[in-house]
Amino acid sequence: MEPVEPLARHFEDELHRLKDRLLVMGGLAEERVRMAIRALVDREPAVAQQVIHGDAPLNALHIEIDNRCFTLLALYQPMASDLRTVVAAAKIATDLERVGDLAVNISEAGERYLLHPPVKPLIDIPRMAALADGMLRDALDAFVRGDTALAQSVLERDDELDGLKTQVFRELLTYMLQDVKTIEPALDLILISRHTERIGDHATNIAEDVIFIVSGRDVRHHTEDI
Amino acid sequence: MEPVEPLARHFEDELHRLKDRLLVMGGLAEERVRMAIRALVDREPAVAQQVIHGDAPLNALHIEIDNRCFTLLALYQPMASDLRTVVAAAKIATDLERVGDLAVNISEAGERYLLHPPVKPLIDIPRMAALADGMLRDALDAFVRGDTALAQSVLERDDELDGLKTQVFRELLTYMLQDVKTIEPALDLILISRHTERIGDHATNIAEDVIFIVSGRDVRHHTEDI
Repeated sequence: MEPVEPLARHFEDELHRLKDRLLVMGGLAEERVRMAIRALVDREPAVAQQVIHGDAPLNALHIEIDNRCFTLLALYQPMASDLRTVVAAAKIATDLERVGDLAVNISEAGERYLLHPPVKPLIDIPRMAALADGMLRDALDAFVRGDTALAQSVLERDDELDGLKTQVFRELLTYMLQDVKTIEPALDLILISRHTERIGDHATNIAEDVIFIVSGRDVRHHTEDI
Repeated sequence: MEPVEPLARHFEDELHRLKDRLLVMGGLAEERVRMAIRALVDREPAVAQQVIHGDAPLNALHIEIDNRCFTLLALYQPMASDLRTVVAAAKIATDLERVGDLAVNISEAGERYLLHPPVKPLIDIPRMAALADGMLRDALDAFVRGDTALAQSVLERDDELDGLKTQVFRELLTYMLQDVKTIEPALDLILISRHTERIGDHATNIAEDVIFIVSGRDVRHHTEDI
């Protein structure tokens, strides 16, 4: 990381740079998911291997962004929505790192899947991945622009993703029950669909953070002792 | 939440109270996981239902702890390891809330599992749950005491959990291949073992936060442009 020069730039400039770096990290995480799905659909184990062994850049960005957040908090002591934005940025970086881990999980199950003949043409899993990818991109855009309507639309799409996961599960279960040879590869497809659904969960986390940043929580009432 | 009186208490007192509340939240999350596993082992769908519909207290604690963190940051502008501790507390609360969600996921799969005759005596899944539970408790203790050696031991136990998950997977696959009637319930046990493994992942996240709080990261070198 280039040294962030204390107080040399304004807080707003640093925050802008932080958001830029989060978008770069998001783009990288999305790219890894797309590669993992491409490896599966195009039956390219070499691409899966690339994903499995290629998590260093994303991890380095995670560390860099975390450091930027702590530096911003320590140097500028932001308040109210600025404070919430910086803390949310640190949480979002964690979400994006996990998305990268899920791309690895998908690639690992994908590698095993490719050892067998295809169970069926893959349609719903790429659809799930495209949906999750769109949710993640929109959640990050919503964060950068403080757009709660866009964040809300991400939350709403999570049900669609969940519905597709259930559909994939039922269909694959039918294959497994009909033909014992499909059990192992179908199981890996079920796991891949769950990993993909979890990418949507991370997009949902980010969207919830956006709504929290903009609306705050100070007015909420809740009990102390539970 | 009781109003946190601005500057009426010292930062150290507030931080102590924050840690206490995190321990309460951790205890509640662990209790939900234990109930979910008990419902499965003792074949008690009513207990699974309790877990599925009982996430309000944990969610309320999450909000309360998040608010405490933001209040602490805004009022006291802590530096260095105090700053890292408060931000880590907010992250840990998110991890604990997800552990509660995983207890729900386990209970949902458990309910489905209980609709079928048992596939096999459950030994490894309760072992996995006990291991994950111990990791979570130790990770939180390590956080409260700033004990990096304990945090390190949590990280090391994650491999054991991963090994058990692989063993469970292989064993259940054998059942599924031998008897088509076991496919559905065995699939749910596989999902439960994965949810349990993810509880260990959250314990690992917390342990990594502890090591970060104590050691800091300022000395790390990494490149700016990836």
